[in-house]
Amino acid sequence: MAFYGNNRRGLLIVISGASGTGKGTVIKALFDKLPNLVFSVSATTRLPRVGEKDGVNYHFMSREEFEREIAADAFLEYADVYGGAYYGTLRREVDKHIAAGKDVLLEIDTQGAINVMDKAPDGVFVFLLPPSKEELRKRLTGRGTEDEQAVAKRLAAADVEFERAKRYTYLVVNDEVNNAVDKIAAIIAAEHCKASRCNDILDEVTKN
Amino acid sequence: MAFYGNNRRGLLIVISGASGTGKGTVIKALFDKLPNLVFSVSATTRLPRVGEKDGVNYHFMSREEFEREIAADAFLEYADVYGGAYYGTLRREVDKHIAAGKDVLLEIDTQGAINVMDKAPDGVFVFLLPPSKEELRKRLTGRGTEDEQAVAKRLAAADVEFERAKRYTYLVVNDEVNNAVDKIAAIIAAEHCKASRCNDILDEVTKN
Repeated sequence: MAFYGNNRRGLLIVISGASGTGKGTVIKALFDKLPNLVFSVSATTRLPRVGEKDGVNYHFMSREEFEREIAADAFLEYADVYGGAYYGTLRREVDKHIAAGKDVLLEIDTQGAINVMDKAPDGVFVFLLPPSKEELRKRLTGRGTEDEQAVAKRLAAADVEFERAKRYTYLVVNDEVNNAVDKIAAIIAAEHCKASRCNDILDEVTKN
Repeated sequence: MAFYGNNRRGLLIVISGASGTGKGTVIKALFDKLPNLVFSVSATTRLPRVGEKDGVNYHFMSREEFEREIAADAFLEYADVYGGAYYGTLRREVDKHIAAGKDVLLEIDTQGAINVMDKAPDGVFVFLLPPSKEELRKRLTGRGTEDEQAVAKRLAAADVEFERAKRYTYLVVNDEVNNAVDKIAAIIAAEHCKASRCNDILDEVTKN
């Protein structure tokens, strides 16, 4: 299936979803389906683990370096998480792929995504939903690894995420992985055809 | 391929394209691919031809009736063409299908489409483009039915259409029929996932 749109530049695609929506499985299947899709390598101040390569797993930076990049507005989003280490998405890392015609996928939480909406309003923002609250409860309980209190906490966190979901461009219900993947692939193909992204094509056709 | 989006209401899809873009072939193939897609029956003041049925081929109306509907703002678009007969798209005809969850396709010219943009801003507006001006010239010449002057006239008319194309939501290059059909199918699937169309789904998931 030849599925790519008209424009030659890549897209920035941001995917978020509450825990229990099956985001990881969907994203894995999406990469299998779309050869033009790439991950963006994050920057971090945490130390490399054994086997991790700079520029491959992460862009490893010192805290000073990272804060200099923050000051230079080099990040689409960043957060200070996991016990004091910074993690972030460099705008130039994303732009490099987009200029080469690759679609870049960012898998980030709603707080990070809302920051990206401000910095990259031409991004495509997809929020993954479970089919129902009941189904979400089942999936979280079904893991069997968490007690009732932990499940209740996750459901409350999900409500906060759902409230933020209204600001996304697209909502995709993950009823079945293949359906959700087909829908996201369709969203990517459609966004490539957006008139606002296709000025070069129109010039091509109208030139004499 | 399960390709429909989240929302339960249908979409209004408007397709236009300059002559020589292969619009007819693409639309025929699109109907073969998408069982949820329907044509809207136009209203007209011309007399029924032998075998034509009211409500099936057209909604046949008297001139007085048609003008009463114009005055009542009942049309998404209409035009007075082909030697004095009115042709138009009734809003209630489109709404009926949309409420039933069907996607409605209108194949109209750019002037009509611009009227629909005003009356139905939640419609999906797709403009079909030839791959290049040169290719368009080849296709128009290749028909062999028209002299050079007629071809030049059609090319000039196409330029007017291309200028209006900027106002459409999506541009789709018809390089190959299957590619164009896949892209339009993707656009329809993606539009069904637009957050602005999916309030009911979000309510479903967030209710306790």
